[in-house]
Amino acid sequence: MDKISQLVEALRCLPGVGPKSAQRMVYFLLKHQRQRGLHLAKSLEQAMSYVTQCEDCNNFCDETKCNLCLNPNREQSTLCVVDSPTDILAIEHSQAFKGRYFVLMGKISPLDGLGPAEIGLPKLKKFIIQNNIQEVIMAFSANIEGQTTMHFISEMLKGITIRTSQLAQGIPTGGELEYLDGNTITSALKHRAEFNY
Amino acid sequence: MDKISQLVEALRCLPGVGPKSAQRMVYFLLKHQRQRGLHLAKSLEQAMSYVTQCEDCNNFCDETKCNLCLNPNREQSTLCVVDSPTDILAIEHSQAFKGRYFVLMGKISPLDGLGPAEIGLPKLKKFIIQNNIQEVIMAFSANIEGQTTMHFISEMLKGITIRTSQLAQGIPTGGELEYLDGNTITSALKHRAEFNY
Repeated sequence: MDKISQLVEALRCLPGVGPKSAQRMVYFLLKHQRQRGLHLAKSLEQAMSYVTQCEDCNNFCDETKCNLCLNPNREQSTLCVVDSPTDILAIEHSQAFKGRYFVLMGKISPLDGLGPAEIGLPKLKKFIIQNNIQEVIMAFSANIEGQTTMHFISEMLKGITIRTSQLAQGIPTGGELEYLDGNTITSALKHRAEFNY
Repeated sequence: MDKISQLVEALRCLPGVGPKSAQRMVYFLLKHQRQRGLHLAKSLEQAMSYVTQCEDCNNFCDETKCNLCLNPNREQSTLCVVDSPTDILAIEHSQAFKGRYFVLMGKISPLDGLGPAEIGLPKLKKFIIQNNIQEVIMAFSANIEGQTTMHFISEMLKGITIRTSQLAQGIPTGGELEYLDGNTITSALKHRAEFNY
């Protein structure tokens, strides 16, 4: 297989890249952007080889601990538990949380062989005790796996006097009522809040 | 800048990849596909460094001559002139052409400083004479630059007794008449063909 076909094939590992767009990418780089293509190769190699996980919170990072764990300005007593490092990006982007994070290795999913130990709940418990965490915010997507995971976490924390909370469920900003599903509207009605004018 | 941000930034060189999808790609690779990511890095580096252009026809290839030029089974007297190696892929995909190819370095475009010499017309002339080409099919997109380029090529070939042709213009397969533009319909009417039943 020649180098062009090899590269077209290799680009297919990227999510959302099919044969046509891979081909378009290859010819675009060959024609106009060889230097940037080489730079991309180098960055890829570096990231794939050296990005590791924070020994405290499991977030992706270059060193043994991530910037969020090393930052003394974060509120040290509030912990947000997520199931993927990408969720941290989304929450940080909102700028609404200033505490610490802990990344689970996925969500509880017995069919996939993911039980409490596999997703790292024992490590979470240790983290909570060692860091003297006062509140655990469970920030999972609103689906069955998320619910199950929250259930397991709160079971695990039963012996510890600590506040556990979950993200509010309701209508998303900009969500058109007429297009929202029944479950969302049920949650929004159930958790309705006093209107402050 | 950490390695993750560097890679997100570097992926932006790919056409159609914005900041969000670059981020999604990076986390996907880090989580699930590190080996394939490393393989992609290697393929990229190889292609960017070693893919060159065929010394005969300018098509991209790994060696000094491309597979199409080296293939003795191609019809040696018919030449299809295109303005990009990607056009060769499209034509080969149709399996309707068995002759040889020549890739120009773009289309004539005085505003971009692309004249006959810049796009390689002298080399094309030499190729036609040396290879004793009998018919030149000019396969360009149907737009102003394509028209201009065809004009220059046929001017250049005036002294040589050779057939020059251009791709037929008309309605594309599956094209709905009501959505086609006026120019296309004009061409389709002008070049209408006898109906064979």
